[in-house]
Amino acid sequence: MRSVSIIGIGQSPVGELWEESAREIAYRAISSAMSEAGIETADALYVGNMLSGSLLEQEHLATLIADYSGLRGIEAAKVEAACASGAAALRMGVMAVASGFHDIVIVAGLEKMTDTIGKDTTAGLAQAADAEYESLHGVSFVALNALIMQRYQYEHNVPLDAFAGFSINAHRNGANNPNAMFQRPISRDTYMRAPVIATPINIMDSSPVCDGAAALVLTPTELAYQWTNGHHPGSVQILASVSATDSLAVHDRRDPLTLDAAVLSCERAFAMAGVTAMDLDLFELHDAFTIMSALSLEAAGFAKRGEGWRMAEEGRIGIDGDVPVSTMGGLKSRGHPVGATGVYQIVEVVEQLTGRAGTNQIKDARLGMAQNIGGSGATVITHILGS
Amino acid sequence: MRSVSIIGIGQSPVGELWEESAREIAYRAISSAMSEAGIETADALYVGNMLSGSLLEQEHLATLIADYSGLRGIEAAKVEAACASGAAALRMGVMAVASGFHDIVIVAGLEKMTDTIGKDTTAGLAQAADAEYESLHGVSFVALNALIMQRYQYEHNVPLDAFAGFSINAHRNGANNPNAMFQRPISRDTYMRAPVIATPINIMDSSPVCDGAAALVLTPTELAYQWTNGHHPGSVQILASVSATDSLAVHDRRDPLTLDAAVLSCERAFAMAGVTAMDLDLFELHDAFTIMSALSLEAAGFAKRGEGWRMAEEGRIGIDGDVPVSTMGGLKSRGHPVGATGVYQIVEVVEQLTGRAGTNQIKDARLGMAQNIGGSGATVITHILGS
Repeated sequence: MRSVSIIGIGQSPVGELWEESAREIAYRAISSAMSEAGIETADALYVGNMLSGSLLEQEHLATLIADYSGLRGIEAAKVEAACASGAAALRMGVMAVASGFHDIVIVAGLEKMTDTIGKDTTAGLAQAADAEYESLHGVSFVALNALIMQRYQYEHNVPLDAFAGFSINAHRNGANNPNAMFQRPISRDTYMRAPVIATPINIMDSSPVCDGAAALVLTPTELAYQWTNGHHPGSVQILASVSATDSLAVHDRRDPLTLDAAVLSCERAFAMAGVTAMDLDLFELHDAFTIMSALSLEAAGFAKRGEGWRMAEEGRIGIDGDVPVSTMGGLKSRGHPVGATGVYQIVEVVEQLTGRAGTNQIKDARLGMAQNIGGSGATVITHILGS
Repeated sequence: MRSVSIIGIGQSPVGELWEESAREIAYRAISSAMSEAGIETADALYVGNMLSGSLLEQEHLATLIADYSGLRGIEAAKVEAACASGAAALRMGVMAVASGFHDIVIVAGLEKMTDTIGKDTTAGLAQAADAEYESLHGVSFVALNALIMQRYQYEHNVPLDAFAGFSINAHRNGANNPNAMFQRPISRDTYMRAPVIATPINIMDSSPVCDGAAALVLTPTELAYQWTNGHHPGSVQILASVSATDSLAVHDRRDPLTLDAAVLSCERAFAMAGVTAMDLDLFELHDAFTIMSALSLEAAGFAKRGEGWRMAEEGRIGIDGDVPVSTMGGLKSRGHPVGATGVYQIVEVVEQLTGRAGTNQIKDARLGMAQNIGGSGATVITHILGS
């Protein structure tokens, strides 16, 4: 198996991009990544996207974007795994390069959730859950996470502001990310006074509906220098790429408060990369809701069951902490354009590992992990990158 | 790169399966393929599907099906490339095994187009076209193919029944396929009297709306015998796997009467497999509309531009012809459950190459090609299999 490196990254700002269509947003990210990699074409484009069919009435999305990006002719496919679609597309890209099928692959993540001509975004997002056993009963995706958070509060008897630290950290970091949707820090008071959207989830526990695209250029590690003529800012190697799953329906899980798929995904990723959780310099976790941050930290082995929330309270997740998370704002502050998120996470880890994270730069960051979660924990894809 | 073999196939009957939900149809195909391969679990499941979001309000489909099939925990992702979604999922499976990431991969194709709770199937299928430049103007997918067919009639001055032979051949073969949706031969007279649905496409030129799922089990060729304990009916090797693209919008094409992506896809597949078109014992082409059969034969090099239709008239595409097509009924008679079709095609080539095609068996078939087309020619994925 060939080792795979990332030699170019690109991203659009995240936000309500009313003036740009899906293909235009994707093109911005792709052309930027291609430019950084110093390439003019590619062998394939894999696009992570969840909702183009439901919200934009556009499937066949990857081929459309390939053509619009000046890449007519190359292989193209869309990969979908709900909110983990971005990392799922990266999995396909990694395998395409690792296998030897392709030497230059572009992986993009894209979601366009505004300007959807009367489509229901909340109903769209509920498609990440089990349509027949959850959504048809009227449970939205926020409501499912709220049930999990409520159970966590009950079972672990945590204070009302237990999850505030995740939101505060995300907004503090997002304030320094020019591509973030929300570039303002928030206080604990702001968190505590935020309107509740599904008890106990308030608006500051929840990531926003938004548009955005991010892109990566992959090549075999052995060719990374050659393809980029030595002028790129530094390539980053993909040390592990692992996907694991659980039931979509929360009521079918072994334990609704343990992300079994994340445990599996992390264990395998650590083994593949030959590292432990303690070796990581940062962890871009999937903070679609603050409860997911706590559960992810627990599943990765940083905290015991029921104690993940303490890491935020103890200041361990900040840029100077021992496990920095959401270093460019995370899903909460940078934003969560669903199918694009997994690729944004990788872009941000690459920024950290190549010393381009600006004010949020983690000193001497060499090893980073990104974890993209589909649904309320049913698909968990973990990548470990090293520079 | 490891060579990849198919060690198990499975399929549901194609038709209006009102009494079965999407997950149940998929499970039938998957369990049947697993049983044939003699396996009880797998490393990954990739599902080709186009319309689960739009028609069933269910994304996150592959993880759902993995769980329902008793495979909780394994990697799962849905791959979408419009009507070429099935073969696109197979591409991901081939790369997963070829790269060494996985040893046992299940690839399934699934579409559920009936029982969709008031969703518009015609609008769903139009998502294979360019939403902003074609579909928004009211052009359905049938209408786009009709424009291409009309242009073919005009430019090549062909008789009114030029395409009848493709439909007659498909129905003749489908009559012997117990899984086909239509199991009755049709006459030329039936074709000529069929109601027109979008001039000049009549109902006998067009594949039906239907449900169905098909599945494959992949493993490295070097392990094929070992995994199956020597009791499977014979493994089939994937000699080439290639995807190529064109613009979605027909008006953007270099030539609306040449499938450029099919030309590219075939040329690369022939080179990868080290064979020529003339070496093939059968060609499962993508006869969503009879015009596509003619264009595919031309793109693959069997006929000159404007002369593909003659091959049907000259009796060359039947089971005993020199280029048998739609040998188990094709999209026209077996049916076209959109995202599943690409996998059905492979299942049927495997049946031919392992002597299990029954009445439709091609004598001494050793080399077969399957071609799955997304949209009206924008994504073309070609696989060449050998036994």
